[in-house]
Amino acid sequence: MELTLTEIAELVNGEVVGDGSVIITGVGKIEDALPGQITFISNPKYVKFIDSTKASAVLVGEDFPQVSIPVVRTKNAYFSFLKLLRYFNPPIETLEEGIHPSAVIHETATIGANTRIGAGVVIGKSSRIGENSTIYPGVVIGVDVVVGSNTVLHANVVLRERVKVGSKVILHSGVVVGSDGFGFAREGETYHKIPQVGIVIIEDDVEIGSNCSIDRATLGATIIRKGVKLDNLIQVAHNVEIGENTVIAAQTGISGSTKLGRNMMIGGQVGFTGHIEVGDRVTVAAQSGVSKYFPPDSVVFGYPARPIMQAKRQEAALRRLPGLLKRISELESKLAAFEKK
Amino acid sequence: MELTLTEIAELVNGEVVGDGSVIITGVGKIEDALPGQITFISNPKYVKFIDSTKASAVLVGEDFPQVSIPVVRTKNAYFSFLKLLRYFNPPIETLEEGIHPSAVIHETATIGANTRIGAGVVIGKSSRIGENSTIYPGVVIGVDVVVGSNTVLHANVVLRERVKVGSKVILHSGVVVGSDGFGFAREGETYHKIPQVGIVIIEDDVEIGSNCSIDRATLGATIIRKGVKLDNLIQVAHNVEIGENTVIAAQTGISGSTKLGRNMMIGGQVGFTGHIEVGDRVTVAAQSGVSKYFPPDSVVFGYPARPIMQAKRQEAALRRLPGLLKRISELESKLAAFEKK
Amino acid sequence: MELTLTEIAELVNGEVVGDGSVIITGVGKIEDALPGQITFISNPKYVKFIDSTKASAVLVGEDFPQVSIPVVRTKNAYFSFLKLLRYFNPPIETLEEGIHPSAVIHETATIGANTRIGAGVVIGKSSRIGENSTIYPGVVIGVDVVVGSNTVLHANVVLRERVKVGSKVILHSGVVVGSDGFGFAREGETYHKIPQVGIVIIEDDVEIGSNCSIDRATLGATIIRKGVKLDNLIQVAHNVEIGENTVIAAQTGISGSTKLGRNMMIGGQVGFTGHIEVGDRVTVAAQSGVSKYFPPDSVVFGYPARPIMQAKRQEAALRRLPGLLKRISELESKLAAFEKK
Repeated sequence: MELTLTEIAELVNGEVVGDGSVIITGVGKIEDALPGQITFISNPKYVKFIDSTKASAVLVGEDFPQVSIPVVRTKNAYFSFLKLLRYFNPPIETLEEGIHPSAVIHETATIGANTRIGAGVVIGKSSRIGENSTIYPGVVIGVDVVVGSNTVLHANVVLRERVKVGSKVILHSGVVVGSDGFGFAREGETYHKIPQVGIVIIEDDVEIGSNCSIDRATLGATIIRKGVKLDNLIQVAHNVEIGENTVIAAQTGISGSTKLGRNMMIGGQVGFTGHIEVGDRVTVAAQSGVSKYFPPDSVVFGYPARPIMQAKRQEAALRRLPGLLKRISELESKLAAFEKK
Repeated sequence: MELTLTEIAELVNGEVVGDGSVIITGVGKIEDALPGQITFISNPKYVKFIDSTKASAVLVGEDFPQVSIPVVRTKNAYFSFLKLLRYFNPPIETLEEGIHPSAVIHETATIGANTRIGAGVVIGKSSRIGENSTIYPGVVIGVDVVVGSNTVLHANVVLRERVKVGSKVILHSGVVVGSDGFGFAREGETYHKIPQVGIVIIEDDVEIGSNCSIDRATLGATIIRKGVKLDNLIQVAHNVEIGENTVIAAQTGISGSTKLGRNMMIGGQVGFTGHIEVGDRVTVAAQSGVSKYFPPDSVVFGYPARPIMQAKRQEAALRRLPGLLKRISELESKLAAFEKK
Repeated sequence: MELTLTEIAELVNGEVVGDGSVIITGVGKIEDALPGQITFISNPKYVKFIDSTKASAVLVGEDFPQVSIPVVRTKNAYFSFLKLLRYFNPPIETLEEGIHPSAVIHETATIGANTRIGAGVVIGKSSRIGENSTIYPGVVIGVDVVVGSNTVLHANVVLRERVKVGSKVILHSGVVVGSDGFGFAREGETYHKIPQVGIVIIEDDVEIGSNCSIDRATLGATIIRKGVKLDNLIQVAHNVEIGENTVIAAQTGISGSTKLGRNMMIGGQVGFTGHIEVGDRVTVAAQSGVSKYFPPDSVVFGYPARPIMQAKRQEAALRRLPGLLKRISELESKLAAFEKK
């Protein structure tokens, strides 16, 4: 697969500066691109790397300074890069067509056209899988499950009974959807299990990273709205609702019945306490502990999480604390000297 | 399935206030219950939600104020709710009877009466499974494993060799029991693996959430005592012991050889350092880091964890720290003015 | 299996003090060793446990005081213990020889001599597995994967397409290698997936704990260098590189493109921000948040992580903060009294 720079410029609706006949055979990161590859710089501060790159050309934004190798200028360098990345790396065939004979599919389950099902997959009674979906080996789907179209379930995903997964969803390996919520009624020293009879709803265009745990609701549904993106090893407890297009980094945990807004950006290893609501577009810094409501568009940080300006003021004061101790001791001795006089 | 309010009152040993002939067909959360359902309020402060609920009746405690819809009063509203929840949501059949023909069970393994075994399950040499247990598809059980009766192993659980799991235990999908403990002997720059030849013992009535990792002991046993409840994505290192009925929220990690007391309540994302002991009934707030012994009945919080009163005093002082800086500067300039005089 | 103390001393190149004819049948921890077992004390401060142990002998270092039971003195007591542990606990046969007939191996895949493959294993097109490796039941290996020799993949491990795993590697159950990195391009309120076309390279002698997630690179490779040891439930994001012999405790997360040095020692539940580099032999205390570069041999701690001396000074000052508030108030009132005069 190869394109000239001029052809690349056409593909990304950009403009060549330099030799348009240069042949490009792939895309690479600036630090390890090979001759024949095109690389990409979005931030002008990385322009210094141009001198040492082996790439034959570079994709840049419109405001980028002139550099020593041919460039393709484009309005949105990042999206253009995405386009080229897809062009030069067409998806490889990772699962054969059809349904593998070793899959165990209940006679009452229905499978849409063109859906691929790998070796050892198990699909339970009355479950319905849409069209053009891909179910890799080792996936276990319980009874009465619904999966949409163009959805990908990677190897060893588990969908428990009655779970609903939308279309164009990607669940990475080891994801468990619909495990029981963590609910017990205490009696003296022992705990009785509260049956978790609710479900999980995962809407369209959601992506969930490997080894995440998404618990079913006690009653009602745990809901992951359209367009949500979860990184790996995330905990979503029973009856949580995550608003549309919210993005959450790895190892974050959301306690029971908490409702997150839309378009939130949440760092890694964050914890949310249970039974709270958080506003739309709130940003939460990594490792924070969110224990109460924050209004839309807040930026919060720390443990417990506070608005970022307040948290940073405290941080700064904290760094000066050891010095303070000395200053107070000095004040005290000076004052004592005065008192003697 | 339906009951009149009068029949419900009998079932939960309570008393109807209002029309006992109202027909109830299910149970719902107060905010999304439908007409025909009964809902539940334990805390009088939620009484305001009564006006907007569509539920036909509500289950309340004995001290609850009078409200506009029929109620069933009962001594323990929460337990009564649990009873109704079970009544209206009988377990659905999620795995067929018998042993699926695709399961691979070693000829020396023994399986108790009425135990159900799903597709693709693997059970190793000399392993023994009790009666009435349920082993979902994709579970892998190694050699010499013992599993009790009435135990449920959800899809894709792994039990490594020589692990012992009791009766009435529930292990959720993705749980790994008996992986090697993290032990190495350093020699210069490299590490030699210390063989982990111990086992894991999980006693009766334990429940372990999805994707937890429970490591085998180096020597001896990692032990999870009767009645312990673990949420999802929890790390239990080699030679840990968790006391009876201790409850631990998601993503907490317990380092090697640490011994937790009975009836502890531990929040999410807590870390315990290795080789410590913690007393019975200690409560640990979420995201704390516990690095030393605390006596029974302590309530601890923070990083590093301290008794909660001390931690809160420090928190409060910290919030006043930026103001303090100003006060000290003022003191210094006043004192300097004095000194000039 | 049994040895006399004299034979043990020969095996570990040590010296018996006491009766060399004592027969030893196994190894135990000091607190639960049985008669007939030898135990081990490395730290002289544990000498007090000798009085209550039931062990018949104890393995100690050269500087150890005299005790009441026979000892074997040796230069490196820990390594000697390791040797005995291996001697008395030879590996048990946990997977039968050969390839289980239920395994689904693509006709173009190659499997080295003496490699054992368990029930239900799936190996994709063009993948190549080395000699003497062990692949437990339920493992799913995608297309074009390379696995070296003497490598162990425990039950339900997933290796996605094009991943490369070296020799003498151990991957514990539930590990996912090669899931997509977490990369999206934002357009208005929605996110477009950035194809993750890179790979993962795991070099020789690496061990990775259960339920870890190792994402593939966007472009290029996520690299785990020779001798790295990862505990359980660790997140390794796309394009991360972990230097040789670095050891990381459970539940730590490393964000995208971060490069860790060699021989680092990293505690549990640590978070690393993305796009940073950290020096060789840096030690990071548990639960820290590392957000910037630290030079080789640093010891860092806290959130955000700071050099440990600085962090401890701040900790100490923080503990004195509530008292400080009182001292400042006193200063203020004294000064006010002066001003009145």
